[in-house]
Amino acid sequence: MSWTISENDISDLARGAAVLGTGGGGDPYIGALLATQALRAHGDVTVVTLDEVPADAVVLTVAMMGAPTVMVEKLPSLDEVTAPVLALGTYLGRPVTHVACAEIGGVNSTIPIAAAAALGLPLLDADGMGRAFPELQMVLPTLYDITASPLAFSDEKGNIGVLQTVDNKWTERIARVACVEMGCSVMISGFPMSGDQAREALVPGSLSRCVEIGKQIMLAREDKADPVQRIVDLLGGRELFAGKVIDVQRATTTGFARGRARIEGPDSTLTLSFQNEHLIAEEDGRILTTTPDLIIVLEHDSGEPITTEALRYGQRIRVIGAPSDERWHTVPALAMVGPGYFGYDLPPHRFDGTIEARPGVAA
Amino acid sequence: MSWTISENDISDLARGAAVLGTGGGGDPYIGALLATQALRAHGDVTVVTLDEVPADAVVLTVAMMGAPTVMVEKLPSLDEVTAPVLALGTYLGRPVTHVACAEIGGVNSTIPIAAAAALGLPLLDADGMGRAFPELQMVLPTLYDITASPLAFSDEKGNIGVLQTVDNKWTERIARVACVEMGCSVMISGFPMSGDQAREALVPGSLSRCVEIGKQIMLAREDKADPVQRIVDLLGGRELFAGKVIDVQRATTTGFARGRARIEGPDSTLTLSFQNEHLIAEEDGRILTTTPDLIIVLEHDSGEPITTEALRYGQRIRVIGAPSDERWHTVPALAMVGPGYFGYDLPPHRFDGTIEARPGVAA
Repeated sequence: MSWTISENDISDLARGAAVLGTGGGGDPYIGALLATQALRAHGDVTVVTLDEVPADAVVLTVAMMGAPTVMVEKLPSLDEVTAPVLALGTYLGRPVTHVACAEIGGVNSTIPIAAAAALGLPLLDADGMGRAFPELQMVLPTLYDITASPLAFSDEKGNIGVLQTVDNKWTERIARVACVEMGCSVMISGFPMSGDQAREALVPGSLSRCVEIGKQIMLAREDKADPVQRIVDLLGGRELFAGKVIDVQRATTTGFARGRARIEGPDSTLTLSFQNEHLIAEEDGRILTTTPDLIIVLEHDSGEPITTEALRYGQRIRVIGAPSDERWHTVPALAMVGPGYFGYDLPPHRFDGTIEARPGVAA
Repeated sequence: MSWTISENDISDLARGAAVLGTGGGGDPYIGALLATQALRAHGDVTVVTLDEVPADAVVLTVAMMGAPTVMVEKLPSLDEVTAPVLALGTYLGRPVTHVACAEIGGVNSTIPIAAAAALGLPLLDADGMGRAFPELQMVLPTLYDITASPLAFSDEKGNIGVLQTVDNKWTERIARVACVEMGCSVMISGFPMSGDQAREALVPGSLSRCVEIGKQIMLAREDKADPVQRIVDLLGGRELFAGKVIDVQRATTTGFARGRARIEGPDSTLTLSFQNEHLIAEEDGRILTTTPDLIIVLEHDSGEPITTEALRYGQRIRVIGAPSDERWHTVPALAMVGPGYFGYDLPPHRFDGTIEARPGVAA
């Protein structure tokens, strides 16, 4: 059933999205600012569930691409947010009917709200990942042979590009170097889909889920309950570690925020490796969880999600693991987003510690 | 008056274009191969002079962009040559009526012939520079406020992009990083112009001039005359130096073939600095000629032009200087293509040694 996003929902939604963003997807505070501004200027946004989308809808994803370390310093204008959607609509020669989130994350769940408000279009209660991943081909639609291109990108200066590539990895490669040249952060719109394709390929109910997670964090705080435990219960995950951040190495290279953080617990040390998003959680050399399952960093007491670019020495945090959409555990999906893709010579480990076969290797 | 390019003209044209290409624009032999193949498959190409172009013509430039060191190893197919023109025609929503050369150079004067043949379009007897320059904004149309964008680029894999940028330098910046990512050599088409704009902004008669230069080199050889002196006379230039190549430093970086060559003469040494094209000729610390005037390297006896990527130890060469289109000596033009732009702290030196004021500095 369709519902309406108004200004009052934004803070819960952005906070919940930052939880599912596994450290990536950009700063939820900045994302909330932008969506709030758009809703004030253009009115509420209608959110439609996947079962309601007409079969012949023209759905485009909208996202910010780049290094979160840069995104936090370059809040886009509404014109910049709508530019790639408008450019792509012109390129397609068909009116765009719906906007969708490519991923769930602090900025990347709220920017599509801003785009939908400014364009007067409905938004899908869905996204392409059910979490955040660093590269643009890393969405479930890629597994359904839905092409990223034509994909449009735009910057704050007014530059626009449209790509039509031979596969989604090439869209990523060309858009990424353009993004770096344009200042390490651009707006993108792509993955043109029919309603039927969106129904099949997207993760249903993502935005509702974000609002619910955000609400429950606030309710737990009001109830003097444990917000972290509330999130663990909601996601069906488990707490992996609790401790204090003692070291963060971070570099913005080739358009990504890459790094490693060490968290000291009472008896052991956890190492988190990230590329925009957390990829590997390792306790004293023992792997606890790897991509594609969710590795989520929360402030110890308040349960406030902490993005990778906001990790700082001295923060007291808790780290939880949670299951990803099950489709990420298929062989082609693990080849695309498993630890091996990111250069780690490891089999995928689920949030509960189960070790999976490496893609292309018999179990 | 319009004329026809047939297979028999190609070798003269390519050789003449390599002379005016000042070391850049790609290998004339490769350019000739591609044009010959296209003319055999699709028939002769009509070349129309600027005064004949209808005022409302839709003219696009066609060129290969990238490092000549890579171009020589990646001869494009005819499909690749026509792809950006077709993509741009679709993007513009208007039929393209004429093709033009962006620059004069071994490959970049023959690729537009191949494109015109394959597309069945007439080619203008004109180009955007009257020589070759390394970056795509460095054309006279930029001085007439003609935008490079929309500009399309394509590679041998089938990837295509269309850029719409805020200025021509941004077209260069984004297309250049895409070009490097796509393998350091792509086909481009852009600078949409009306017939009236083409008439005003392009260099007239370039292709006729290339054919004439190529013919005169062959005639001089047949007459046992001096081909180099013949070229000097044709271009109204002067011989700067004669000697043997004793050192070539060359690196393909950020999408360009950059380097320096030293030529030993009887009493002194000449240093040539290049970025795809020759930029500075300096004899024992004394500047002889700089960009935008033409610095042309020819084989000592045959007058065969030698491109920068073909310079080798031991070659006996002669270097000549020749005047560029006079519009390159205006203040905005010198800011765009003078020695200062390329990082040399020098005033521009004309081919005859005259020193000009630096752009923005009183003489």
